[in-house]
Amino acid sequence: MSAAASPAATLLRGPARVEINEVAPRDGLQIEPVVVPTEAKVAFVDALSACGFARIEATSFTSARAIPALADAEALMHRMRRQPGVRYTALVPNLRGLERALSCRPDEVNLVMSASETHNRANLRMTRAQSRQQLLAMIAEAGAAGVPVNVSLSTVFGCPFEGEVDSAEVMALASAFADAGAAGITLCDTTGMAYPNQVAALCQAFQAALPGTGLTIHLHNTRGMGLANAVAAWQAGVTRFDAAAGGLGGCPYAPGASGNVSTEDLVHMFDCMGVQTGVELGALLDVVAGMPELVGRDLQSQLLSAGPRLRTHQAPAWLAEHFAGQA
Amino acid sequence: MSAAASPAATLLRGPARVEINEVAPRDGLQIEPVVVPTEAKVAFVDALSACGFARIEATSFTSARAIPALADAEALMHRMRRQPGVRYTALVPNLRGLERALSCRPDEVNLVMSASETHNRANLRMTRAQSRQQLLAMIAEAGAAGVPVNVSLSTVFGCPFEGEVDSAEVMALASAFADAGAAGITLCDTTGMAYPNQVAALCQAFQAALPGTGLTIHLHNTRGMGLANAVAAWQAGVTRFDAAAGGLGGCPYAPGASGNVSTEDLVHMFDCMGVQTGVELGALLDVVAGMPELVGRDLQSQLLSAGPRLRTHQAPAWLAEHFAGQA
Repeated sequence: MSAAASPAATLLRGPARVEINEVAPRDGLQIEPVVVPTEAKVAFVDALSACGFARIEATSFTSARAIPALADAEALMHRMRRQPGVRYTALVPNLRGLERALSCRPDEVNLVMSASETHNRANLRMTRAQSRQQLLAMIAEAGAAGVPVNVSLSTVFGCPFEGEVDSAEVMALASAFADAGAAGITLCDTTGMAYPNQVAALCQAFQAALPGTGLTIHLHNTRGMGLANAVAAWQAGVTRFDAAAGGLGGCPYAPGASGNVSTEDLVHMFDCMGVQTGVELGALLDVVAGMPELVGRDLQSQLLSAGPRLRTHQAPAWLAEHFAGQA
Repeated sequence: MSAAASPAATLLRGPARVEINEVAPRDGLQIEPVVVPTEAKVAFVDALSACGFARIEATSFTSARAIPALADAEALMHRMRRQPGVRYTALVPNLRGLERALSCRPDEVNLVMSASETHNRANLRMTRAQSRQQLLAMIAEAGAAGVPVNVSLSTVFGCPFEGEVDSAEVMALASAFADAGAAGITLCDTTGMAYPNQVAALCQAFQAALPGTGLTIHLHNTRGMGLANAVAAWQAGVTRFDAAAGGLGGCPYAPGASGNVSTEDLVHMFDCMGVQTGVELGALLDVVAGMPELVGRDLQSQLLSAGPRLRTHQAPAWLAEHFAGQA
């Protein structure tokens, strides 16, 4: 009998099935120092498409000047092979970007603003009021085009400049966007400031206030709490998780910040826990193994180093002789 | 209102106060390639003594041939300055080691064997039956000397050679040692194979079966689940946690294995969650900052890199000018 199968295992409860959104092609590659050639990006996204993700955030329709690494957004969207069952989404920072994105037929677009004033100004060069207004206009325009909108709210669990962020302000923003027609909201722990009971509390408050709005959680592992926060969100009933293969990503405004929760660590944990993700871990690890070549640097993938938990090792060769004749 | 203070925060419940056992001087230094001079070890333990730990596992009374790094066990135990309120414990592998340890007046001794046969043979060069018999004799001898005994059971959440480990066998061993007089049992995830609902289930089963026996959990972060498993144990009511400053430690029989859960990450998380640990994080981080010099290599301390979650950063200098005159 495994421990997990025992009756006592019911202490930790959550959904039987979750969705994983792979964000490395956008959230990861956007801050890598190298510009990955379009051909390699297409191959990367295509390989991810075979893994079983619910969504892949393929790129961002930002200005080539702001993020040269993603200047090939249209080319990527046209050349990647869309796998049935995967929703391909793209980040869109403004109305100009939205028009570009819509011409590429995304299954969904992802808008972004910060819950804290200073981070919004630093990251988007707008006040929160300006961002809010712009996002409402974009929700209307995407809605008119029949494309579902998700809004990612940054710094909801803490701001690297301001510290604590008031969850009432987070919920006010989420409600405004949901009321305007956003199909989903992502609560982002942009710089890894979230902690487990905070995550559970905000996710519960969100679901109580906005039961019809899809809730995604976006976690970083900056202070080691990435997977602990994922379990907390899962216990609160969250079924959608952003993650980045190889733990790519980070935040330029948070010194010492490490990347997103790594997809392979997250999928492996849910596999162990008996929670269905739809993602085939072996296929994903094959993709991750190729990522150092993609980004031209070593990656710290704990799961790739250690292997899945039941990948056993050979016992030392001297054992058999040492214990020869013993029970 | 912070999210953690809201009524919804009660989804994640656990003890209001936990104890942290610092194991880096023993479990960490024993596998470092360098032999740390006794003087530096004394300074390390003394600095840890000022942090507020419940226990410090200072050394191991093993043979100097097996673990040269800890050959100075007696010298360390005599020269370190004992802080009132801290229990100083030492690992003891056999009866000879127990005699040496008892001459140094430890507050407690820690015995060890593995729950899985192959790991026990590889790590201790004995069968489980031999280890069990020896530990029972050591519990009797320590008891006669009036020194409390803890037994650390390795590989209880999985064995790197055998895979799954039967929790019924774990509980049979734990019960045998508790019946023989062990004051405490540590459930060790030796190579980072534990996952959250497994941890919660085994900890619950343990406490139901052995309510009078102190339960400690010893976690590794090999597959990123260290803190997630700590929260699961806490939710199951566990109040004692082993951890190693700087995440020192590992297991020579588990390729790719990273070290113990790092004490600073664990204390920081509990601080965030409002769970009392007694450990002063700032003092601990000062110790961790000096550890690369101690062990002669870089350490991957996530918390030391990123800082506590509310250590905020200066906003970019251009912000003030860019938004001059705006609300």
